[in-house]
Amino acid sequence: MFTLAEIAETLGRPFEGDGTLRFVRAAEPGAAGAEDLALAMSPSYANALRSGRARGAILWEGADWRDFGLKGAVLVPRARLAMAAITSALDPGPEMAPGVHPTAIVEAGAQLGKDVSVGPYVIIGRHVRIGARARIAAQATVAEDAQIGDDALLMQGVRIGARVVIGDRFIAQPGAVIGGDGFSFVTPQESGVEKARRSLGDQGEVTTQSWTRIHSLGSVRIGDDVEVGANSTIDRGTVSDTSIGRGTKIDNLVMVGHNNRIGEDCLLCGQVGIAGGSTIGDRVVLGGKVGVNDNITIGNDVVAGGGTDIFTRVRDGEVIMGSPAVKMETNMAMYRALRRLPRALEQLAELRAKIKAGGGDGNV
Amino acid sequence: MFTLAEIAETLGRPFEGDGTLRFVRAAEPGAAGAEDLALAMSPSYANALRSGRARGAILWEGADWRDFGLKGAVLVPRARLAMAAITSALDPGPEMAPGVHPTAIVEAGAQLGKDVSVGPYVIIGRHVRIGARARIAAQATVAEDAQIGDDALLMQGVRIGARVVIGDRFIAQPGAVIGGDGFSFVTPQESGVEKARRSLGDQGEVTTQSWTRIHSLGSVRIGDDVEVGANSTIDRGTVSDTSIGRGTKIDNLVMVGHNNRIGEDCLLCGQVGIAGGSTIGDRVVLGGKVGVNDNITIGNDVVAGGGTDIFTRVRDGEVIMGSPAVKMETNMAMYRALRRLPRALEQLAELRAKIKAGGGDGNV
Amino acid sequence: MFTLAEIAETLGRPFEGDGTLRFVRAAEPGAAGAEDLALAMSPSYANALRSGRARGAILWEGADWRDFGLKGAVLVPRARLAMAAITSALDPGPEMAPGVHPTAIVEAGAQLGKDVSVGPYVIIGRHVRIGARARIAAQATVAEDAQIGDDALLMQGVRIGARVVIGDRFIAQPGAVIGGDGFSFVTPQESGVEKARRSLGDQGEVTTQSWTRIHSLGSVRIGDDVEVGANSTIDRGTVSDTSIGRGTKIDNLVMVGHNNRIGEDCLLCGQVGIAGGSTIGDRVVLGGKVGVNDNITIGNDVVAGGGTDIFTRVRDGEVIMGSPAVKMETNMAMYRALRRLPRALEQLAELRAKIKAGGGDGNV
Repeated sequence: MFTLAEIAETLGRPFEGDGTLRFVRAAEPGAAGAEDLALAMSPSYANALRSGRARGAILWEGADWRDFGLKGAVLVPRARLAMAAITSALDPGPEMAPGVHPTAIVEAGAQLGKDVSVGPYVIIGRHVRIGARARIAAQATVAEDAQIGDDALLMQGVRIGARVVIGDRFIAQPGAVIGGDGFSFVTPQESGVEKARRSLGDQGEVTTQSWTRIHSLGSVRIGDDVEVGANSTIDRGTVSDTSIGRGTKIDNLVMVGHNNRIGEDCLLCGQVGIAGGSTIGDRVVLGGKVGVNDNITIGNDVVAGGGTDIFTRVRDGEVIMGSPAVKMETNMAMYRALRRLPRALEQLAELRAKIKAGGGDGNV
Repeated sequence: MFTLAEIAETLGRPFEGDGTLRFVRAAEPGAAGAEDLALAMSPSYANALRSGRARGAILWEGADWRDFGLKGAVLVPRARLAMAAITSALDPGPEMAPGVHPTAIVEAGAQLGKDVSVGPYVIIGRHVRIGARARIAAQATVAEDAQIGDDALLMQGVRIGARVVIGDRFIAQPGAVIGGDGFSFVTPQESGVEKARRSLGDQGEVTTQSWTRIHSLGSVRIGDDVEVGANSTIDRGTVSDTSIGRGTKIDNLVMVGHNNRIGEDCLLCGQVGIAGGSTIGDRVVLGGKVGVNDNITIGNDVVAGGGTDIFTRVRDGEVIMGSPAVKMETNMAMYRALRRLPRALEQLAELRAKIKAGGGDGNV
Repeated sequence: MFTLAEIAETLGRPFEGDGTLRFVRAAEPGAAGAEDLALAMSPSYANALRSGRARGAILWEGADWRDFGLKGAVLVPRARLAMAAITSALDPGPEMAPGVHPTAIVEAGAQLGKDVSVGPYVIIGRHVRIGARARIAAQATVAEDAQIGDDALLMQGVRIGARVVIGDRFIAQPGAVIGGDGFSFVTPQESGVEKARRSLGDQGEVTTQSWTRIHSLGSVRIGDDVEVGANSTIDRGTVSDTSIGRGTKIDNLVMVGHNNRIGEDCLLCGQVGIAGGSTIGDRVVLGGKVGVNDNITIGNDVVAGGGTDIFTRVRDGEVIMGSPAVKMETNMAMYRALRRLPRALEQLAELRAKIKAGGGDGNV
């Protein structure tokens, strides 16, 4: 239960109308009942607001709240930013009992910070260090010598591998795996794939060889304020560590291979895959399903549209798209041209026929 | 052990020949021994049948079963439909002991229906409601206030988040995560990616900003008869719920982001990714690796070929393909033209040279 | 702690300089301290070596180790192969206590080989057989009647399904799922997607139908020396088994659907997806995010670049790329032509205008 005045304070904005209005939850405009705070931060939601039964709402700056039949409102200039504040204030968070559950196994030498919550069947390995106020949900595992900072939230079944080092305020959604082994194999002689990459397509003579494993001696190093989505995987490095910079957010089913160095404040959207050994700058946004080849460099502030396949170096600030990736405007020009191509080929054939027919008199 | 007559009854078809033939399992025609019921529902499998030792088989309608040296057969008009009936009849299902395993933890206020089977190290949260005959395999977790209907099957390590609501006959393969948090972040000022999306490519001046989290207050709502594949993830909504309609089947490693609304009787094949906030109609089939951008609408009865990237609205009944998605016939025409393009560019160059040479006499 | 002479012996190469040099770990050249063995197997790492404090290193064949200020070195002809030997020698491996942890559940009739290590909360199903020296980490589960050979390593939360059969030296990274059900559904009448595939795009009249499940009676059969990455999934077959040949290595988040038959010594890189019923030869390398359609055949020694979508048969030894896949050289020619297309369309339009203008005098 919260009041309009309280939510206004959370948002750092004044309330308009009746600040004593009480709500039990937030709701979309059309679904909002009398006890719901309607969230309608853009005029496109306004009509839905009229059809609902909301008495109070968060609206866009300049909205005429009385016109929607409301008793009160808070007006905000930047809708999504207001959403961050509202949802943070109203999120009950996962229910976790304080303390260490009796079925949790904490191995010798592990150190847990103040006020941690460790759920049932959790396993904390030998010499692990976990900071204050960590919340570790059921069946998560943290292997030997790993370190996690303060205020961590590990959801059910998260796997933190040996010697992984993670900063403060880390969040991992269920099933995320940090610190699996890198995927790195070699054949005794040069393999077909090595030859094909070197020659851009020619494998030469094929020999029958098996793969030998290159083990991962490195680990994973993650900065503060990082979040990793459900069932995503981040592999350990071969010699040095795979690293994820402060503030970077990783969505579900993302794969970060071994030895990658990801910068700060990046967004890696769902199903992004980064092969191995690449360097990615700060504030890079990779849309859903973006693929990044191994051993390349992506600058700062790069934005890649969904489905982009990045095979080569990308410079600071570029907005890219396509497979292989090119600048977005180049991609759109190529695509528009391709749409016109079937018709253009007909025109070309007509032209050739004409020229050929006309060519008889020697002029063309 | 089952007889030919019994399997005929299962299929709702008459048997031919010896209905007392006994089998212990089904097998492919070439591998079938004397105790195996051979499955050969299309003439293309007929020769393999001759080389095997099967005495009985399921064959296509009109097949001459005696000609294959069989003692009996059941003839079926629609092979895959018969497969559904046969495999359902012969599947032993996972072994699960009745009752609640002594190591399972059932929190206060949780209600389990009749005849449930709850495996070792399972955790059922506070106030969870689970219907009759549910089978919950080892180490699955169901968080507080979640509801699951009758006849559910949750395999090992499935994660059901808080407040998720699921209908009857739900099946989740190992490692599926229902109800992780949505991936939703915002910067204090407009970010480069927002500007690039608005301008189709121009980020303007880049500023250094970090991401603030938008929490997920909504949950996930799933209809009856839904199946979710291994290690797939379905995120909760921001304010309202992410929803999956009745009868929809989801393959492995699929990501359904926050606030999506998926219709009924859809098929989402392996590694499909649906970003967030999109609406997908009924009976939509998305092939493997299809990507769907955020906040778009896909109509009913849409079919998208494998690897299609959908960035814009798709109308009812369209069959689409490519990246970006276009109608399949358009995609094929574009592709055929592209195959011819290198040669066409040579022809164009020749033509230009000719015209230029011919142009000297003033005609062209 | 190890000496230069010892690592030389591991590599089967002579050491140069002081064989008694002692190291505690391996390190990259620039980061190497006095107690680290620097790994710098290519001249491109040479400068970093000068700036570090390493006293000993592994270098490329022909390197002048004294010139880098080192006291000793081992020179190797093939860098990555040397990496395999060095990392194998120095990898401590995951910490696992010998024997069966008291919280592990081993069901009746299960047989564990000599010297196994079974971690906390592991579940071994009825009649499972596991070979000698297996290491099964916390919370992994092996379902009824599964068989795993000698020297297996199952990391945390791995799921092995019922009746799965696996050879020796199997490695599964955290969260891998072997033996989930296949994704196979059928409608009573022919569905829109079946019609669209048959007609290449035309669904005909759409009817409202629901999907009936085809159960998976088959299992998964895996040869010796196979590795499966974190959160990858391999589905069981419908009637016969899905199979993975000896020596094949599978990266993270890979999906192998039902009834696929994968050959020996293949590499399936991150996020590869193989739909169902396909046959893949030996020594095939599929780059990251490669998709393989259902029911196709890929020959031996095929190499597919990252992001390739394979819809049709591929012959032995082909190096392919693109969506849909074509030979790499064809793909590059098509792509180069596409880059030139926008300009070519302008040229074509100019030419047409010229011809039209010139056409007035009847010559063309």
